[in-house]
Amino acid sequence: MNSPVYLDHNATTPLDPRVRDAMLPWLGEIFGNPSSAHAFGQVAREAVERARAAVAELLGGRPAEIVFTGSGTEANNAVIFDLARRSSYKGHIVISALEHPSIREAANRLETMGMAVTRVQPGHDGVIPVAAVEAALRPDTRLVCLMLANNELGTIQPVGEVARLCGKRGIPVLCDAVQAVGKIPVSVTELGIDYLTLGGHKFYGPMGAAALWVRTGSELDGLLVGGPQERHRRASTENVPAIVGLGKASEISTAELPQRCIFLTGLRDRFEDGLRLLPDAVVHCAGAARLPHTTNLALLGAAGDSLLIRLDLRGFAVSTGSACSSGAVEPSKTLLAIGLSESEARSSIRVSFGISNSAEDVDRFLEALSTEAAELRRFGSALIL
Amino acid sequence: MNSPVYLDHNATTPLDPRVRDAMLPWLGEIFGNPSSAHAFGQVAREAVERARAAVAELLGGRPAEIVFTGSGTEANNAVIFDLARRSSYKGHIVISALEHPSIREAANRLETMGMAVTRVQPGHDGVIPVAAVEAALRPDTRLVCLMLANNELGTIQPVGEVARLCGKRGIPVLCDAVQAVGKIPVSVTELGIDYLTLGGHKFYGPMGAAALWVRTGSELDGLLVGGPQERHRRASTENVPAIVGLGKASEISTAELPQRCIFLTGLRDRFEDGLRLLPDAVVHCAGAARLPHTTNLALLGAAGDSLLIRLDLRGFAVSTGSACSSGAVEPSKTLLAIGLSESEARSSIRVSFGISNSAEDVDRFLEALSTEAAELRRFGSALIL
Repeated sequence: MNSPVYLDHNATTPLDPRVRDAMLPWLGEIFGNPSSAHAFGQVAREAVERARAAVAELLGGRPAEIVFTGSGTEANNAVIFDLARRSSYKGHIVISALEHPSIREAANRLETMGMAVTRVQPGHDGVIPVAAVEAALRPDTRLVCLMLANNELGTIQPVGEVARLCGKRGIPVLCDAVQAVGKIPVSVTELGIDYLTLGGHKFYGPMGAAALWVRTGSELDGLLVGGPQERHRRASTENVPAIVGLGKASEISTAELPQRCIFLTGLRDRFEDGLRLLPDAVVHCAGAARLPHTTNLALLGAAGDSLLIRLDLRGFAVSTGSACSSGAVEPSKTLLAIGLSESEARSSIRVSFGISNSAEDVDRFLEALSTEAAELRRFGSALIL
Repeated sequence: MNSPVYLDHNATTPLDPRVRDAMLPWLGEIFGNPSSAHAFGQVAREAVERARAAVAELLGGRPAEIVFTGSGTEANNAVIFDLARRSSYKGHIVISALEHPSIREAANRLETMGMAVTRVQPGHDGVIPVAAVEAALRPDTRLVCLMLANNELGTIQPVGEVARLCGKRGIPVLCDAVQAVGKIPVSVTELGIDYLTLGGHKFYGPMGAAALWVRTGSELDGLLVGGPQERHRRASTENVPAIVGLGKASEISTAELPQRCIFLTGLRDRFEDGLRLLPDAVVHCAGAARLPHTTNLALLGAAGDSLLIRLDLRGFAVSTGSACSSGAVEPSKTLLAIGLSESEARSSIRVSFGISNSAEDVDRFLEALSTEAAELRRFGSALIL
């Protein structure tokens, strides 16, 4: 039997062996709390600061602007909740309807606490119209949240344009770039935003290390309070091995991003070209600017969750794109937001390629997809296994 | 030259090699997001659930009561801020004056938001008097925070008694057990508290993995919101390698705690016996019930921070016990709280032994301490190097 093929890199990525090698000494031989004044602590402190410089370089920012957190969710939550608290839970925020749950749910919580929230809908192309964001702004708008690339569709959002129009009004912009960093070039100066978040395990770095970039001069008191770590912006002993890994993953991305983009675009295009031979396969938002490695497609008449199980049994890992970990399988909110019917949304799967995939993986997957989708259509989705 | 001797295990501990071995497969060969429905995800899910069972067993709790977090600070903050939010930032909380900054600073923030905070002072013995906690309770008290063992002094607090009197009044108790778990037996049922926190890197587990135990029936909406992870009590992709490590560290602690206590008590007693030969050495809170591995002592007339630097240059890592990572060296709030003068507090150092220390380490350290303290006294602390 062939070894399993992982095609769900938007959920998590395997650790780059070079990242692993950078982390290993910190899982035994070397250790220390970076807040300790003695030599053990200072060696750890230097490692954290080297990683900070590497993350800053990847984004075109300054090391002092990087705040390490434990997850992308924590980084997104930190900006939103901190800003809301400093506004005494009054006023208005704008988010796109495509945002990750860590932003959607934070906005929902603020709504229950008395803040007003506007959710800007995307077009059928999976892109948030700039004019719609502009129309949503109010005099009491405290924050605008727009992700750089959508996790389900891969569509790239007009963050720079939105930042420009918000900047004129003095409204800060939070850009969730968790799915974009390490996949496409990201420059905080070009984007012109105020806050940007990224997560290590989405680009071949470790779980447990993420970062929040905070523009010099922008406010952040921090979600976690206690010790003075991260210049009083995030209390907690730093997760040194994971931070070292995030630094290494950033360094590799800075060096290899152009080749990585070309390679992943090649796999994705090979896949989407192959899909043309499949009856009723529709790639969502195919005309929009998208991440190089993500394809979200409907195989009309074949239930996505059944297809996922069949493919899994054949050794191919893909996703339906919906947060179904609780067992309740709902159609993707993102797919409904771009105007798909519930049945189209339910027949969709997300395929996200990674740097260890090969052209052969793509071809084998296309064959499996074709066979399994045909079987599903023949027997109906009730007979899922 | 002899290899450095690490005597600062309350700051952080080296990773147990068995913990490292448990984590390694998750840093390369095996990977997956536990929320993914496919095989990669399900293998990760099973690993997280095995770790949850191991942490629960260490505490005498149920697996469903364990919420994994990224740090002890996050776990402490989560309980306090969540409870405050559900109380609409009204009412009163009680904390001990010995609490960790993650509790002290959280209380300070709530005070600025309109809540009332009472800080209960310890006695000279480094222990919070139960009667003082009782006297602090009000009809609108929402939460009482009392740590199990103090991080600087090692003194064990009367958490069970406090929990009983709070329980009668329906007031929940948060017990920060970060410094106690893995060092002394901890049973959530015996303590009778509602929330308990622990952190992996304080007991030979990894950084980046901590846990919050929430009694069945107690409320917790979570500080981080987004995905449905941890039964909607802590959004974020689970840090699988670190959680696996925390599980392994818990399993080892469950098995080896009795021997560990005996071994550490032996080192500590050998050290404190040796101290009797040093002029003007005073062990703080020597008469109180203390953790088996922590000694906080003053060497009167020798500045603690100068001593720390001298000892560090000779290869011994200890701490002054104050949070001085920002460069501003202030005397320890904890030492002042037990009634020491500023000069006594400034001449104090914390020594915390670990399972890889030896009797020889203790003897060498005693010799170094004697020499360096004498030098410091002779030349005065202005000549620190």
